[in-house]
Amino acid sequence: MRIRIGIMGYGNLGRGVECAVKHNPDMELKAVFTRRAPENVKILTPGVKVYHADEAVSMKDEIDVLILCGGSSTDLPVQTPELAKYFNVVDSFDTHARIPEHFDAVDGAAKENGHVGIISVGWDPGMFSLNRLYAGAILPGGHDATFWGKGVSQGHSDAIRRIDGVKDARQYTIPVESALEAVRAGKNPELTAREKHTRECFVVAEEGADLERIEKEIVTMPNYFADYDTTVHFISEEELMRDHAGIPHGGVVIRSGKTGWEDENSHVIEYSLKLDSNPEFTASVIVAYARAAYRLNQEGQTGCKTVFDIAPAYLSAESGEELRKRLL
Amino acid sequence: MRIRIGIMGYGNLGRGVECAVKHNPDMELKAVFTRRAPENVKILTPGVKVYHADEAVSMKDEIDVLILCGGSSTDLPVQTPELAKYFNVVDSFDTHARIPEHFDAVDGAAKENGHVGIISVGWDPGMFSLNRLYAGAILPGGHDATFWGKGVSQGHSDAIRRIDGVKDARQYTIPVESALEAVRAGKNPELTAREKHTRECFVVAEEGADLERIEKEIVTMPNYFADYDTTVHFISEEELMRDHAGIPHGGVVIRSGKTGWEDENSHVIEYSLKLDSNPEFTASVIVAYARAAYRLNQEGQTGCKTVFDIAPAYLSAESGEELRKRLL
Repeated sequence: MRIRIGIMGYGNLGRGVECAVKHNPDMELKAVFTRRAPENVKILTPGVKVYHADEAVSMKDEIDVLILCGGSSTDLPVQTPELAKYFNVVDSFDTHARIPEHFDAVDGAAKENGHVGIISVGWDPGMFSLNRLYAGAILPGGHDATFWGKGVSQGHSDAIRRIDGVKDARQYTIPVESALEAVRAGKNPELTAREKHTRECFVVAEEGADLERIEKEIVTMPNYFADYDTTVHFISEEELMRDHAGIPHGGVVIRSGKTGWEDENSHVIEYSLKLDSNPEFTASVIVAYARAAYRLNQEGQTGCKTVFDIAPAYLSAESGEELRKRLL
Repeated sequence: MRIRIGIMGYGNLGRGVECAVKHNPDMELKAVFTRRAPENVKILTPGVKVYHADEAVSMKDEIDVLILCGGSSTDLPVQTPELAKYFNVVDSFDTHARIPEHFDAVDGAAKENGHVGIISVGWDPGMFSLNRLYAGAILPGGHDATFWGKGVSQGHSDAIRRIDGVKDARQYTIPVESALEAVRAGKNPELTAREKHTRECFVVAEEGADLERIEKEIVTMPNYFADYDTTVHFISEEELMRDHAGIPHGGVVIRSGKTGWEDENSHVIEYSLKLDSNPEFTASVIVAYARAAYRLNQEGQTGCKTVFDIAPAYLSAESGEELRKRLL
C-alpha cells in the first residue's frame, strides 16, 4: 500500500527524487520516464524500469503521483498541464513571473480530470516562499529580504559556458556578509543587487583562448553579471572537477518587524538552508509534497495547489495524533 | 466587515493581542474580558469596553474569534473547551504533555457547536513545532534540536521568587554556543540538559536575607536548576527595573539530515527567532491564526485544529492570487 511514484525526466533532479523516495518507506518508485533512449538510461533502484516518456500515459493506473523533473523554460509549461490530465503531479516550476499563468493552466487540467497538481515546489520557490508567507502574516508591516548562497547558480554557469573560448565554468553566488548583518539587525537597508550578492566564477578556457576578453565578457554581461561585483578565476579542467564538482546551495529568508502599541519592540525571524546538493534537497521537498498530493486526492480534492495551500500535516508520514504528541 | 476579535484575560499576552490587532487592518478589537473588576482594567484601544469574564457568552454574536489569554496550568484546560461552545477560539496552551487531551476536549466542544478551535499557537508550541514538522518531512532520518534563548523564562523566574528571602528575580535561559555550533555542523551530538543551556539569575534579596542560602537553594532546585550550570547575581531592585524590565526570548530549531543514494550529502535547515517581547510575538502569531479560525469556520469547518492542520494561506490577509504573485 505504498505510494507509487513515477519520475518524468532523469537529470540531477530526477535522480534526486529517486534517492528521496528511497528515504521514505511509505513510498516506492514505480517507473522512470525519459525522452532519451530508455536503454541508455541507467537508474539506481534495482528492479525498476525506465520507459520512454511517450509510454507514461499508458501507465496512469500504476502510478499515484508523477513527479515532473524537467526544466521551467520549455518542459514544465507544456508537461505539467498535459500530464495533470492523467496523473496527480508535482513540479518545481521556478520562473517566478510566469507562476500565475502556469497555475491556471494546471488548475484547469487537474480539475477537469479529478487530479491534484502541486506546482513550484522546492526551496525557492517552495520553503523560502512559505517562510515569507508565515513571517509576513506574523509581522505585518515588517520587511523581508532573501539572500542566496553560497551556492552554484546553474543559470549563471551556463551563461559563462556560452562565451566563445570557454570550455566549462562554475559560478558561485555569495551573499555579502555586511548586508546580511544589517538585515539581521533589523535595519531594513535599501540594498541594490550589488550590495546583496557577489559572484565568483571558476572558468576553464580552451587552449589559446583570450582570457582577458573572456573575463571582460563575463563581468560586463547584462542581467547576469554587470550589476554585481564579479571575480573570475581561470583554472584547469582537473581543478574544476576536483574542487567544484558538487552542486551546493542555500540561503536565508529574514523578516524583521515591530510589535507593541507604539512599535516599541523588534523581532527577527530567520530561516536558513545550507545544502550540499541543491537538486537532492529540492527533490526531498518535492517528495514530501508528493505525499500531500496523494492524500489530498484521496480525500477528493482536485486542482492546482502550491505550498501555500497545503496544511503541513499532509507532508508527514505520521498521523495527526502522533504529530501532536511528538512535535507540537 | 473586519474580523471582530475578543480577548479573554488581559495580562501580558492579552495586551500583546490588543497590539497585534492594531497591526492588522482587517481586524478590530470588539471587547476585552477579565476576571478582575472591569472598571480597574485600563486597555489601550480607544472606544473598546472591558467586561467581566462572565459576560462573554452573552456577546457571542458580536465576536468572530475569541482569543484566550489565560495560563496553561489551570485556565485554558477549562476555558478553551467551555468557550469553544460559543465562539471560534484560539489559545496558546503550552503544556506539551497534555496537548492530546486538551485537543480532544476542545475538538468535542467545537464540533458539537459548529466552531473552530485552534490550540497551542505561538512560537513553541507553534512556529517551532511547524518547523520541526516541515524539516522532518523533508529530511526523514535526520536529527533535530531545539535551543531556547537567550531569553527570560517566566517559570524559572517564578520559581526563584518563591524562595524565602527573595523579593524579585529574573532568569535568563542561554543556549551553549559550542553545542549550537556542533548541531549546526550536523554532528548530531547527544546533549544533556546541562550541555545545551545555561541559566543566569538576577535576584533582588530582601534586606538582611542570607544570600548564600538563597544561591544554594536556587542552584540545587530539582527540575528547574539542578541539571544546569547556573549563575546567580544579586542586584538591587533599581537595577532589576532598569536592566531587566523586558521579556525578550527566542531560540532556534535545527534539523540536519542526509540525502543521496548512499547518504552522501548533508543538509542543515535552521529556523531562528530573536524576540524583544515574548508575549507580543506570541500574540502576533495567535492573531494570524485567529484570521485562519474565522476563515475556516466561514468555509464550514469545525473542530479542534493545530498549526499542523492549517494551510499557510489562511494566515494571510492577501488572496491566493496575490500570494502566488508576490511571495511564491
